[in-house]
Amino acid sequence: MGFKLGILGLGTVGCGTVQLLLDSDGRHPLLEEIEIYRVGVRSPDKPREVKLPPGVINTDLEAIVNDPEIDIVVEVMGGLEPARELILKAIRNGKHVVTANKAVISRFGEEIYTAANQAGVYVMLEASVGGGIPVIQPLKQSLSVNRIQAVTGIINGTTNYILTRMQSEGSSFDSVLADAQNLGYAEADPTADVEGLDAADKIAILASIAFDGGIKREDVYCEGIRQVSKTDISYAQKLGFVIKLLAIAKKIDKLSVSVRVHPTLVPLGHPLASINGVNNAILVEGEPIGQVMFFGPGAGAGATASAVSSDILNLVSQLISLPESKIENSKYKIPNLDPLLASFHQQYCQLAPSEELITRFYARFLTKDQPGVIGKLGTCFGKCGVSLESVVQTGFQEKLAEIVVVTHDVTEGNFHKALDEIRNLEAVDSIPSLLRVL
Amino acid sequence: MGFKLGILGLGTVGCGTVQLLLDSDGRHPLLEEIEIYRVGVRSPDKPREVKLPPGVINTDLEAIVNDPEIDIVVEVMGGLEPARELILKAIRNGKHVVTANKAVISRFGEEIYTAANQAGVYVMLEASVGGGIPVIQPLKQSLSVNRIQAVTGIINGTTNYILTRMQSEGSSFDSVLADAQNLGYAEADPTADVEGLDAADKIAILASIAFDGGIKREDVYCEGIRQVSKTDISYAQKLGFVIKLLAIAKKIDKLSVSVRVHPTLVPLGHPLASINGVNNAILVEGEPIGQVMFFGPGAGAGATASAVSSDILNLVSQLISLPESKIENSKYKIPNLDPLLASFHQQYCQLAPSEELITRFYARFLTKDQPGVIGKLGTCFGKCGVSLESVVQTGFQEKLAEIVVVTHDVTEGNFHKALDEIRNLEAVDSIPSLLRVL
Repeated sequence: MGFKLGILGLGTVGCGTVQLLLDSDGRHPLLEEIEIYRVGVRSPDKPREVKLPPGVINTDLEAIVNDPEIDIVVEVMGGLEPARELILKAIRNGKHVVTANKAVISRFGEEIYTAANQAGVYVMLEASVGGGIPVIQPLKQSLSVNRIQAVTGIINGTTNYILTRMQSEGSSFDSVLADAQNLGYAEADPTADVEGLDAADKIAILASIAFDGGIKREDVYCEGIRQVSKTDISYAQKLGFVIKLLAIAKKIDKLSVSVRVHPTLVPLGHPLASINGVNNAILVEGEPIGQVMFFGPGAGAGATASAVSSDILNLVSQLISLPESKIENSKYKIPNLDPLLASFHQQYCQLAPSEELITRFYARFLTKDQPGVIGKLGTCFGKCGVSLESVVQTGFQEKLAEIVVVTHDVTEGNFHKALDEIRNLEAVDSIPSLLRVL
Repeated sequence: MGFKLGILGLGTVGCGTVQLLLDSDGRHPLLEEIEIYRVGVRSPDKPREVKLPPGVINTDLEAIVNDPEIDIVVEVMGGLEPARELILKAIRNGKHVVTANKAVISRFGEEIYTAANQAGVYVMLEASVGGGIPVIQPLKQSLSVNRIQAVTGIINGTTNYILTRMQSEGSSFDSVLADAQNLGYAEADPTADVEGLDAADKIAILASIAFDGGIKREDVYCEGIRQVSKTDISYAQKLGFVIKLLAIAKKIDKLSVSVRVHPTLVPLGHPLASINGVNNAILVEGEPIGQVMFFGPGAGAGATASAVSSDILNLVSQLISLPESKIENSKYKIPNLDPLLASFHQQYCQLAPSEELITRFYARFLTKDQPGVIGKLGTCFGKCGVSLESVVQTGFQEKLAEIVVVTHDVTEGNFHKALDEIRNLEAVDSIPSLLRVL
């Protein structure tokens, strides 16, 4: 038993990880080098599915990150504090860290990486994005010879589950959400999922790795799925699209990137269009590789435990292959970190101004039933340089005509300028939907 | 410029790799540590798309693997010999090896790994399976905490292209093959692709990593797509399937595995059903992760160069993070290889006897147009313990009735016993198709 773990947190992910590690037969033999030495919890008397030897469970989390016996701290407690503070203390104490904490890494990643590089330890975060899907390590190791152009993901299972059911059943957002809450696929307070905040955390992390620069979490544009109506899902389908909550990180030019989360019309033939239910998928585009996609379970105890445990195993593999002389050193502090495994960002990425971004739009208008309304819309768009792919009067709602427009590529700025003009048209009642098109 | 490459071969993959390495701006900064020191070719005067400084190109391949200046040998020449011999010599000379050679690794992997472990060097082979798709490294590093139950792949782009076009156009195998040859998607001698031999090489490699044991290449069951008719593709579609050439490695029990390549009916909702054209995809199933899938371009200069170069980068990253004292040692020979990056197999996997394997079958029969034929077929199947999911008389061909049968799970042995009885029925003219169902 060479390496001692201090695990912080014994919720779903913590229990899954402990169960995997305690049941190592038939897995990688290196797992036998790992000892679950301490597990820190806040409520020691809560009934739990895992059995640990007496003395392992501890309520003093500080003591764990300060314990000189511990080699690797595994943070699976979630939340911002005290998780951030405990991670930083563990690092300063020379411990390697494995974390599943997307909230902390997306907000304090640079602070944590800087501390880790100074201390000569690794911070591993495969479980922070895409549950069990290997995506952080492939991006860092297997794909980093590419010039990454874009990372596009369905990385929130709850919203994908809701959209998939709205699509297949023709149901409304509210009714599917209520059902998802009953089934345990959505939380009682669904805000983080439904508003896209969870996906924004994750795409900020993926973007920082893909583009090798920090991303300021507060700069990530984020639009959730509350306003996606069954009407739009049905029109999208007729036009050959499905609506997905996409998290998109794109290289704009040598200096700047865009990082955004929003519901998006995805063409039916696109690899992401067929990702349904709680599954996640991350599509990476680069030169010279082209498109590669990683697909799998984006959440759940087992899948996330796979990612956490593989990070632990990777650390053990690094530590065990050090020459004897290094192992004798105080707690394996590594003088030269493996640059593909460590996280270095030399600078922050610059986020391109929103109004300059180029995309296609889908918009739905309710207008008075007058002749010439389509012409008036077209004139407003044309004046602002917005070229239309299609304009269809799709029907009537309570005496108002319903018109759906799909644009060609436009800048966000020009499109919104056109919308401002259109809102002032006497014939226009309202613009109930505005979505982007991949 | 820390690390010197000796590249063997300057064909499609070699040129792609050289181009990527010579154009490193905007890629991982570690690439700048790499020098293309020698490139060994057989025909130095052949016109090539890459420009190399004078003195780099060399026709003496032996000299490259013996050159004490060279740190990493990159074998991208293909074929069995002299590739195998050169790889072994490079290893014995203490050089790390990167290879894209599925034929050599699937046949001589154990010999090569043993030599590498004795010499304390790495053998990297990401490019040998799935072109640019990261799959070898995720299997070795990110998924190895799982008990892998199955690896199922579409890992030959040529056959997937042919089957996709047969499906979408209703064309015959021969006409699509001829067209694929004209377009450069199939070789003049298409045997290795069409007979499944290329896929068998690749699944042998994936299985040996997934199940941590050598696979004897000659034991891999292999059936190609020549006998897949447009008739069967059309029936399969009506039954809710597409036909794909699948390479399947499965854990049967603690001791044995099955490793097979055959055309297979895949249910339309299955993640592999929508993988079309020259794309590849590898689905890994394990406990506790569930299903993860890797998708992308399975061939091509750029994609394969991405895999080769990422292997080179991984080696450099390993070498550069060694403490100073090790670097001064003769040519970085590493005393303790990183166990997740090295290839160790303690034994060979045992392949389960074919007749005991359990699968579903699809079979098409031509019979005389007599009453009671379906009953006779059913009786033969029933006697042998083969339970049928459906029996449909689908039509007539030249006065013969055509009957399509889909079974439930059966052993291969029982199914073939039933077929032997059926062949002896007076009413049965022939059994033109026999396919497995996923």
